[in-house]
Amino acid sequence: MRGDRPAFVTFREEGPREGFQIEKRPFPLADRVALVEALAGSGLSSIQVASFVNPKKVPQMADAEALFAAIRRRPGVHYDGLWLNEQGFHRARATPGVDLSGTLLAYVSDAFARRNNDCSAAEMLERQARWIALYQEAGVPLSRAILVTSFGCCFEGEIDPRRTVATAVAIERLCREHGGRLPEITLADTVGWANPEAIRRVIGMVREALPETAIGLHLHDTRGLGAANVLAALEMGVDRFDSSVAGLGGCPFAEHGDAGAAGNICTEDMVFLCHELGIETGIDLERLIGAARLAERIIGRRLNGRLMHAGSLAAWRAAA
Amino acid sequence: MRGDRPAFVTFREEGPREGFQIEKRPFPLADRVALVEALAGSGLSSIQVASFVNPKKVPQMADAEALFAAIRRRPGVHYDGLWLNEQGFHRARATPGVDLSGTLLAYVSDAFARRNNDCSAAEMLERQARWIALYQEAGVPLSRAILVTSFGCCFEGEIDPRRTVATAVAIERLCREHGGRLPEITLADTVGWANPEAIRRVIGMVREALPETAIGLHLHDTRGLGAANVLAALEMGVDRFDSSVAGLGGCPFAEHGDAGAAGNICTEDMVFLCHELGIETGIDLERLIGAARLAERIIGRRLNGRLMHAGSLAAWRAAA
Repeated sequence: MRGDRPAFVTFREEGPREGFQIEKRPFPLADRVALVEALAGSGLSSIQVASFVNPKKVPQMADAEALFAAIRRRPGVHYDGLWLNEQGFHRARATPGVDLSGTLLAYVSDAFARRNNDCSAAEMLERQARWIALYQEAGVPLSRAILVTSFGCCFEGEIDPRRTVATAVAIERLCREHGGRLPEITLADTVGWANPEAIRRVIGMVREALPETAIGLHLHDTRGLGAANVLAALEMGVDRFDSSVAGLGGCPFAEHGDAGAAGNICTEDMVFLCHELGIETGIDLERLIGAARLAERIIGRRLNGRLMHAGSLAAWRAAA
Repeated sequence: MRGDRPAFVTFREEGPREGFQIEKRPFPLADRVALVEALAGSGLSSIQVASFVNPKKVPQMADAEALFAAIRRRPGVHYDGLWLNEQGFHRARATPGVDLSGTLLAYVSDAFARRNNDCSAAEMLERQARWIALYQEAGVPLSRAILVTSFGCCFEGEIDPRRTVATAVAIERLCREHGGRLPEITLADTVGWANPEAIRRVIGMVREALPETAIGLHLHDTRGLGAANVLAALEMGVDRFDSSVAGLGGCPFAEHGDAGAAGNICTEDMVFLCHELGIETGIDLERLIGAARLAERIIGRRLNGRLMHAGSLAAWRAAA
C-alpha cells in the first residue's frame, strides 16, 4: 500500500504571496518580512515572497521591491516572485534579491483561460514561446510549467484527463522546439476539483506520456480533500508540492466568492503528514508551526491550519 | 490502488453531542432541535443527540430529556444518546425517543484510562461485563466496543498496535463469555495521533485477529490528517465512520487545551470524499451542507468544515 513514496519531499511555500494578495487591505511590510524570515528559518528551501503585478489592481503587492530589499537572506533559500506579463518580469528582474524562476503557464480549460487571461488556452500556449525566449535572453533556466485547471474547472466542469495530458505534452514539446528542456510539469488543482482517484489517474497518464519530466502538484484544500490528495500523490511518487503556511490564501471561485473558502494545502500539516510517514522534508516542524502562528497573528483572524492550533506530537512524545 | 473500497459507507453523526458539549456555555434547545432535524433530513441514519451525564459537571447537556422530547422523529433514523455510568444509562432508558445502543468502552492506554476514568485499562475492561449484563437485562443488543486511544496517547505516547489488537480480542472474548456477540470494534483516534500508515497497520492486524468482527473508525482531524486517514481506511474496506457536521467539537488534549483545536472529522467533507470516489452514503450532500451552515450560525463563529464554506461541485457541474 506504500506505493512509491519518495524519501524526500520539497514544499514550495506560497503563503506570503497567496495569503496577502487575497486580503482586501495591505499589510505592514515589517510583518511580511518577519513572516518570510520565519519561514526561511524553518528550513523551507523555496518561498514565493510577492508578485510583481499592477499596483493599481493589486495594491497589496505594490511594495514588492521594498519587501525583497528588506529581507535578510538566508543562504540556500530560493526567494521567488510571481509575474503574469513582461512588465512584471522586467520589474522582478530589476529587483535585487529575486531568485528568478523560468515558470511557464498553460491552461487546460479554455473557458478558464478566457476568463482569467482574455485569450484562449491555445493562444496562451503559443505565448509561452515568447516566455521561453525571454527567459533565455535573461539567462533564466526553465523551471516548470504550471497547468492551470488540471483536474476540473468551474466553467467547463470535469476536465477529461486526456486534455491535461495533451496540454502537458504540448508545452513540453514547445520547450524542446525552442531549444529548452522542461524539468517539471506542475499539475494545478486551481479551483479544488481533485480527488485521490483523479490524482492517481492524471499523474499516471502524464507520467506515461512524459516519463522524463518530473511531476509536481499545486493543490488547494477548497473542499477538504487536500490531505487525501497529497497522500495519493505521495504514493504515486510525487516529491514536490506548492503549499501555504497556515493554509493562507483562499478561492475566488468558491460558491460564496472568497468569503472564507480554504486556500492552498497547509504547509505544516502536510510536512507533518510526510514526517509521520517517514518522509524527510528538511524542515523543522516546530519552527514552521511558529511561523504559522505568526501568520495568524499578522492576519488577525483564525487561519485554516490544524497543527498550528493543536500542536505537534513532539512535546507529547518527549514527555511520554 | 483502489484497494477494497466499500460500495456504501455509513456516517454516524456526533456533532450535536460533541459540538455543544465542548462549548463553555449552553445553547438554546430550539437551535439544537433544529440542527438534529436538519441532520436527519439530510439522510444521516444515526445521530448522537445528547449525553446523559452529570448536569452539574456538564450543564450544556442538562436538558437531554427535553431535547429528545422536542425532536420530530424521522423514520429510519437512530437517535442516539451517550452515557458513561449506570445512572446515565437509566436516565437514557427512561427517556422516550432515545434509541439505545449497546456500546462498550475499552482503553488501550492505561494512563489515559486512569486520567479519564480513575481506573486502570484492565479494570475498565472488567467493568464491561457489568455493562453486557445491563444491556441484556434491558433487551439492548450489543452494538460495538469503542477502543479509546487505539493509535496513540498523549500520556503514553506511541501505542504498540499489538496492544490495540490485544484489547480488541479481550473485549470480543468478554462478550462471548457472557453470551453476547460483538458486531463491531470501533478504533478511536481519541487524541489525533493516527496517520495513514498506522491506520492500515492497525486495521490489518485487528482484522486478522477478529475476522468476523466489523471495524469502524472514530477519527479526529486534530492535526490535519483526517481526510488522508479516511482514504487509507476506505481502501482497507472500512465502511463506518463517526464524524461531526461542520467539524464540530474540539480536543481537550491539544497543546493549548481546547482553544480551537479541530474536532472530529467533518461529516460533509468526508461524505464528499466518498461521493467523489463513487461510494454511496445515502446522504443528500447539499442538505448536509445546509445543516453545517446552520451549525455555524448557531455556534456563532467560523467552524472547521471546508465544503460548507466553498460549496460543493454540484452547482458548477450543473452549470458547466
